[in-house]
Amino acid sequence: MDHKRVAKDTAQVLISYLTYQAVQTVVNQLYETNPSLGIWLNQFSSTDRIQDGEVYLEALMQENPELALRLMTVRSHLAEEVTEFLPEMVKTGIQEANMEHRRQLLERMTQMRPQASSPSETVAELDPSSESDLEESSD
Amino acid sequence: MDHKRVAKDTAQVLISYLTYQAVQTVVNQLYETNPSLGIWLNQFSSTDRIQDGEVYLEALMQENPELALRLMTVRSHLAEEVTEFLPEMVKTGIQEANMEHRRQLLERMTQMRPQASSPSETVAELDPSSESDLEESSD
Repeated sequence: MDHKRVAKDTAQVLISYLTYQAVQTVVNQLYETNPSLGIWLNQFSSTDRIQDGEVYLEALMQENPELALRLMTVRSHLAEEVTEFLPEMVKTGIQEANMEHRRQLLERMTQMRPQASSPSETVAELDPSSESDLEESSD
Repeated sequence: MDHKRVAKDTAQVLISYLTYQAVQTVVNQLYETNPSLGIWLNQFSSTDRIQDGEVYLEALMQENPELALRLMTVRSHLAEEVTEFLPEMVKTGIQEANMEHRRQLLERMTQMRPQASSPSETVAELDPSSESDLEESSD
């Protein structure tokens, strides 16, 4: 696995996502202070453009440089406040989600296992050998 | 700004993105070891489902539990290897991109500024007062 490339791509996705969050923040601020500009920014931002933060900011810079500069300040602030917590949140989140998926799989396998009281419910594709395969690969 | 909510949403986006990267990794491994399964996984993963990592894994768990367990291991590994570098990469990336956007804006404003040799190119909306507004908000 090319971890350096994955890290670089992931950072780029994060930057675009924080740009999107900065837009949400500024739109909500504008709804309070300058509703018509808030509506304009919301409409301007509801295109596919927001998928790439830099392309979006370049386009906004042509239309309203002051708003673009404000968004840049807000996304920089968000990055300072939020990113330091992400490594732990992501690692814990994945661990917990993985555990839940494994639990559900085991539950499903247990329910499908032939019961002594109802041999007719035997499910052919879940024989003991395929089950032990699954258990090995979950380590 | 609700930083706690932004951090939570961002972590969730990151988890789904690392799940997507895990799929790319496993698809490429399978192309070497079991091409037909690689093609199957690639096709299974090219839907909108992959936008939400957990929904995707639940669906895959129904179709091929062994592959789902393998992806869970790979995304967990990616999270361990990659996330610690992200805070610095994201903060630096935003600073550099912001600087580049500001540089381009200043360049554009300089080119549009009335030249002594060609007073006819004066652009009305970029008078000195609106320029100083922009400089203030870029701090």
